Amino acid sequence: MTDTGPIAILAGSGQLPIQLVEHLERTGQECRVLAFRGFAAPELRRRAQANVDLLDLKTIMATLEAWKPRAVALVGAVRRPGFSALLGAYSLLRNRQEVKEVITRGDDQVLRGAVMLLEERGFRVVGAHELAPGLVAPLTLSGRHRPTEDDRHSVTFGIDLLSSLSAFDIGQAAVVARRHVLAVEGPEGTDRMLRRVSGFRQAWFGLRRRREGGVLIKAAKRGQDLRVDMPAIGPRTVAEAARAGLSGIAVGAGSTLILEQDRTMELADRLGLFLVAVTLPWMEGGHD
Amino acid sequence: MTDTGPIAILAGSGQLPIQLVEHLERTGQECRVLAFRGFAAPELRRRAQANVDLLDLKTIMATLEAWKPRAVALVGAVRRPGFSALLGAYSLLRNRQEVKEVITRGDDQVLRGAVMLLEERGFRVVGAHELAPGLVAPLTLSGRHRPTEDDRHSVTFGIDLLSSLSAFDIGQAAVVARRHVLAVEGPEGTDRMLRRVSGFRQAWFGLRRRREGGVLIKAAKRGQDLRVDMPAIGPRTVAEAARAGLSGIAVGAGSTLILEQDRTMELADRLGLFLVAVTLPWMEGGHD
Repeated sequence: MTDTGPIAILAGSGQLPIQLVEHLERTGQECRVLAFRGFAAPELRRRAQANVDLLDLKTIMATLEAWKPRAVALVGAVRRPGFSALLGAYSLLRNRQEVKEVITRGDDQVLRGAVMLLEERGFRVVGAHELAPGLVAPLTLSGRHRPTEDDRHSVTFGIDLLSSLSAFDIGQAAVVARRHVLAVEGPEGTDRMLRRVSGFRQAWFGLRRRREGGVLIKAAKRGQDLRVDMPAIGPRTVAEAARAGLSGIAVGAGSTLILEQDRTMELADRLGLFLVAVTLPWMEGGHD
Repeated sequence: MTDTGPIAILAGSGQLPIQLVEHLERTGQECRVLAFRGFAAPELRRRAQANVDLLDLKTIMATLEAWKPRAVALVGAVRRPGFSALLGAYSLLRNRQEVKEVITRGDDQVLRGAVMLLEERGFRVVGAHELAPGLVAPLTLSGRHRPTEDDRHSVTFGIDLLSSLSAFDIGQAAVVARRHVLAVEGPEGTDRMLRRVSGFRQAWFGLRRRREGGVLIKAAKRGQDLRVDMPAIGPRTVAEAARAGLSGIAVGAGSTLILEQDRTMELADRLGLFLVAVTLPWMEGGHD
């Protein structure tokens, strides 16, 4: 391992890898991109030095060993592969029973397993928040709109809910309206969860119904390794939240990425949504 | 109040009200049906003595007072009305602030509020399980297929999850595959939750992918009043679970209704799904 090599970006889907690469290039930091086929955005795949299948661990390792990076970041979303596919891929590197135990323990464990494998081979794994601190939600977000008392209750209730769910390795996000839970995020992701809320609200109340309120709460799980699958919101999240009739969004301060922060705040202001950062009881002191 | 009047069925959507009415008629018990417009099935609305809007509490109360029923059952699903509509309707009968406090506390509280209102006026409110014990899942269900060890772990994990969620007044059901939570049921209901799992599994693995496994766990919430919104499964649940690639269904013994029990079991056998009843730690002694 060297202190002078490039930063290696293992890139999944979404805007985050693109923005991270742009940030590194703008600040003169050399980086190489290993894009996951079927996940990374086309524009990133064209720019990437390598395009590899997610489960092709041999090529991934060989590529990294050739690059000798000073740090590796796993950025952007990937879908959890099927159980047997995961088992097969990881078994090339590790004892089958050991692998089985890790991958039966939820998403976080699978990603933590990937980090462990990389660290065992001497790579230093870092999070997007360490490479580009400017992308992280600050302690205060100052949009034009403020949460009402009802909204603040929803946020507190939602944080309690996410805290309880952490033990089950789910629940990076939920939608709560006045202590009434409208949705808990599963593997489908935040955007689809919000579309689900839009869907049943339209079916119930009709399209022309005025805004019914409610809050999207998005936060890192208790004990979550922020180097993998760090929660993120962006302009699309704001647009979907507005479509679902919500009154605002609360994110974990210091532990949530805000993509295109200016556009995100502007859109929230324009669509009438508040956007606040809350300190998570389980993250205190847990982030830099 | 009288001991000789009919049984009044306040009927929402789904098969349960129909089957309950059929059961009462078959066993020679007089019943009258008050069907909720927009919810009760057309065949039940034709048979109903009254068709009323869900929020027309004045007509509902006047109808029941005229019928002098010996028991009232709220059966079948209704959607939670919007907050302001609920507030308006209930405020006719009770202090506005008091109503507001009740209806901000989740679905169960709203339904419990309805039971409380009926009881205050001297009506005896009973559950479908009391009127037709034959519809309730027995302690043992003996289908052709049995859960594997992985499936049993998923069931235990799912029961723990639902137990934790009870405090938040959600989570009558969840889908778990090997300690990996695929979905938590929100107000959309079990069928739509299962279709969500089908949706992302098809998108991820393709249509021809072999069954990925996983279990639907459905159970009454901790502290749930079984007289309202008792969990129920039926043939449609089994069909949707199969489509989602699940290996089986576990329901709370003694506290879940199984509609068309013979057809449900036959379908599970035919589609290769196990169907088991589990004793819920929080329901022990809690049901008759």
